[in-house]
Amino acid sequence: MRGLLIGRFQPFHLGHLAVVREIRSSRPDAPLLVGIGSAEESFTWQNPFTAGERFEMIQRALAEAKVGGVEVVPIADIQRHALWVRYLEGLLPPFDRVYTNNPLTRLLFERAGYTVELPKLVDRRRYEGVRIRERIAAGRGWAELLPPAVARYLGSVDASSRLRILRAGGARPTRGRAR
Amino acid sequence: MRGLLIGRFQPFHLGHLAVVREIRSSRPDAPLLVGIGSAEESFTWQNPFTAGERFEMIQRALAEAKVGGVEVVPIADIQRHALWVRYLEGLLPPFDRVYTNNPLTRLLFERAGYTVELPKLVDRRRYEGVRIRERIAAGRGWAELLPPAVARYLGSVDASSRLRILRAGGARPTRGRAR
Amino acid sequence: MRGLLIGRFQPFHLGHLAVVREIRSSRPDAPLLVGIGSAEESFTWQNPFTAGERFEMIQRALAEAKVGGVEVVPIADIQRHALWVRYLEGLLPPFDRVYTNNPLTRLLFERAGYTVELPKLVDRRRYEGVRIRERIAAGRGWAELLPPAVARYLGSVDASSRLRILRAGGARPTRGRAR
Amino acid sequence: MRGLLIGRFQPFHLGHLAVVREIRSSRPDAPLLVGIGSAEESFTWQNPFTAGERFEMIQRALAEAKVGGVEVVPIADIQRHALWVRYLEGLLPPFDRVYTNNPLTRLLFERAGYTVELPKLVDRRRYEGVRIRERIAAGRGWAELLPPAVARYLGSVDASSRLRILRAGGARPTRGRAR
Amino acid sequence: MRGLLIGRFQPFHLGHLAVVREIRSSRPDAPLLVGIGSAEESFTWQNPFTAGERFEMIQRALAEAKVGGVEVVPIADIQRHALWVRYLEGLLPPFDRVYTNNPLTRLLFERAGYTVELPKLVDRRRYEGVRIRERIAAGRGWAELLPPAVARYLGSVDASSRLRILRAGGARPTRGRAR
Amino acid sequence: MRGLLIGRFQPFHLGHLAVVREIRSSRPDAPLLVGIGSAEESFTWQNPFTAGERFEMIQRALAEAKVGGVEVVPIADIQRHALWVRYLEGLLPPFDRVYTNNPLTRLLFERAGYTVELPKLVDRRRYEGVRIRERIAAGRGWAELLPPAVARYLGSVDASSRLRILRAGGARPTRGRAR
Repeated sequence: MRGLLIGRFQPFHLGHLAVVREIRSSRPDAPLLVGIGSAEESFTWQNPFTAGERFEMIQRALAEAKVGGVEVVPIADIQRHALWVRYLEGLLPPFDRVYTNNPLTRLLFERAGYTVELPKLVDRRRYEGVRIRERIAAGRGWAELLPPAVARYLGSVDASSRLRILRAGGARPTRGRAR
Repeated sequence: MRGLLIGRFQPFHLGHLAVVREIRSSRPDAPLLVGIGSAEESFTWQNPFTAGERFEMIQRALAEAKVGGVEVVPIADIQRHALWVRYLEGLLPPFDRVYTNNPLTRLLFERAGYTVELPKLVDRRRYEGVRIRERIAAGRGWAELLPPAVARYLGSVDASSRLRILRAGGARPTRGRAR
Repeated sequence: MRGLLIGRFQPFHLGHLAVVREIRSSRPDAPLLVGIGSAEESFTWQNPFTAGERFEMIQRALAEAKVGGVEVVPIADIQRHALWVRYLEGLLPPFDRVYTNNPLTRLLFERAGYTVELPKLVDRRRYEGVRIRERIAAGRGWAELLPPAVARYLGSVDASSRLRILRAGGARPTRGRAR
Repeated sequence: MRGLLIGRFQPFHLGHLAVVREIRSSRPDAPLLVGIGSAEESFTWQNPFTAGERFEMIQRALAEAKVGGVEVVPIADIQRHALWVRYLEGLLPPFDRVYTNNPLTRLLFERAGYTVELPKLVDRRRYEGVRIRERIAAGRGWAELLPPAVARYLGSVDASSRLRILRAGGARPTRGRAR
Repeated sequence: MRGLLIGRFQPFHLGHLAVVREIRSSRPDAPLLVGIGSAEESFTWQNPFTAGERFEMIQRALAEAKVGGVEVVPIADIQRHALWVRYLEGLLPPFDRVYTNNPLTRLLFERAGYTVELPKLVDRRRYEGVRIRERIAAGRGWAELLPPAVARYLGSVDASSRLRILRAGGARPTRGRAR
Repeated sequence: MRGLLIGRFQPFHLGHLAVVREIRSSRPDAPLLVGIGSAEESFTWQNPFTAGERFEMIQRALAEAKVGGVEVVPIADIQRHALWVRYLEGLLPPFDRVYTNNPLTRLLFERAGYTVELPKLVDRRRYEGVRIRERIAAGRGWAELLPPAVARYLGSVDASSRLRILRAGGARPTRGRAR
């Protein structure tokens, strides 16, 4: 049966790719659902890229790395944690194993009876979304932290300008610094 | 680039399969996004099956029919039609062609500049979701309207009982006939 | 442990009272949660009375009938049936038995492993919410279908005028007949 | 102080214009707020035009008819009738008189202590939104029911095609007839 | 008539119990509504326990302390403060006195014409939700701050582990530290 | 065609008035839409005044300053930035120029093809909403930062008390300091 890996992938970096690759090779027969969390958010510092852009990053990276057997699904947040696992069960095809290092995600799935596995993180200090966003905004040494296809894609959507604006600016169009 | 086909697939029947097959063979190089509409609804007469169940039906049917190059994505409704195309653009990876016979869907996408194609419908009178649901609820001659894998799957989740209840019952748990 | 009875109680009538009384006397040691469904709705033909008004009706009727051991809780609808039981589990203190004649409610609770009991309905043709609302709107012979305390209460909030307007008028303030 | 007139104005027709004109001339010193109800809806048969399109119709019609002293405000529905008047009080500058022929609107405002006046309707049978929409969809004799500026505007946005599609089609992009 | 006391009760501690007891004994004839605020939230650091768990805590504590005349009601937040009092009026049976030390709650109710009373707080430094949650997470000396029945209940749901995870972890399943 | 200026106007101060005046005099023939952002919020420190109160401030200030050609529209937030421009296009009559100094607003509108102009800010350090709110709460020297009509209006609604409470208090009625 399928496994499930949920992340926000802002952006999808080499740490994510290593986790997907490891899961896929440890269980070649079980397809992997990759859920794009906070899918409804974009153009914020925490979630600069739309779900569609993140979808595209993931697919390009997996194609480049020749990793198959992955299904990508955008997942909008619901704000009620007590319902979250049930919500995912209704949205996704059956899965029986969840990969996460997030303690809350782990708690919620274990309470619902799922097996939770903790994927080994590769050099967590380097491969962390917020640090990579900082680097992209600052324009220093970020490309080598991403799969080449993702780095090219971020260049094509001018991610640097966007991140610079989002880091400097306000949390909402109507709540900026310069107002 | 990708094409997009949106439906509710309640359930996924042979008419749907024929459309997917035709689109895929007419453009073998362009992957097809299959969006499961009204993904947030289930256990109603209009939408008896969860998005996850519909996802499973589609994947089983495509595997059985050996149709590849399809990506399945659940899509929750937003209630604001004027925003719908933009909403899909934010949720999905880039697509440039939309397949639909729904006049409103066509209107909304054409206003946004998309190419809309009308898939040929195979014997529309037979292959219509609501009629098939009627047949499943009544327990008469429905299996032959579905891909075998879907028919078996519906059997395994006892679709007949569920549809019988939903047809008879109310639209909400708190608004039934028998209260 | 507690039992749970959910209804919309528009209005709370003698049929409801009989059900509550029967449940309470069959299990004198188990408190009964009475959930007021569709609590967010009011001033519509389907749901003319606010949750607060229904709360008041129920408490007055139970006090008058000297029925104790009942806890009343307003319950707003969520629109996702697949999450409904889990939603109630998060909202209410533990319960282990559900009383309902609504087939969908029964289906959802049985799938979640609950014991569902079907309360005996007393003269269903007389004691049905919509028929009683019709009678109140028409001003003919409704008081005898309600607990006396409820009949007095409905008089005090001028339920007849309200129901007459709601039956004649539109479903929303901005969607009436006379516009 | 201001008066308030709420409608959906689908479309803004000569009956609406007569009402606005009469209110303005009866109280030349009191500005009139014209609230566009169901502002969040569009591209449905009940609400084919966006709030912005309706805003534009109203302003063009009033400019053409040289009616001043009107402020137009889009008003999204909230679904809770018991909160509706309070919601409007928070959204709009102070008003003390409400013009409506909708019995529910009248009930809700009178319960909140407002003076409600019933504008005289001019030939209600002719000037009713749904009938005018029918005529536009059918392409027969609708222009004379609208202020000339509105008729021209509707021509420029090709209202006939849109209404023909919405009348024939489904209530949602994912719930059409032809699916 | 009833009084109203609203809190989040994360968890229900001896300070809360003292307030309830004082209110009940000062007005033995007026039932007290205890509203569980932020009822839709759980499994966050601010709101670790579901409304149902908090409901259970309150009832066990009141039974143990032999305090009667209390009705417990979960209350989901609405995000619009200007509507909050009206929202409560629609949800709850009539009340005419509000007990609160929250300045905003007081402001909103006084603007709506209610009598607001400030319950005397017992040793506020000890009995504050967030400090008690800190102690539970750290596993040091928390049981004596709670009614014995609540302390036992929290032990039975393993509150310590949950709070330790929530304090360490992220605000959402998809926004944790370890991702 | 119209221009669009969006702000939260908490409160509407002399810096805002200068911007409106400059826009109006630079393009006397183009009406200006003034959108009140975060219209659904009030009674928070960030957004103390209701949309209706802000509407009233703006109209009084413009009448006093004899600035015409301005249409005021409350605009509720949607939380999805990627849809924001489209949302405004559906809500407002046509506009073709946007005035903003908010970098995110600018980014979103430029991506959608609009001309964005940066209004010159008058002494930004003095005329900033949050600083003015601080001064009002502290009761020191705020009146001279506002149009006289706004200063009088804020006096009439006792803005000082409200702001003092909101600065001290919690973000929600159920999440205050004193609980």
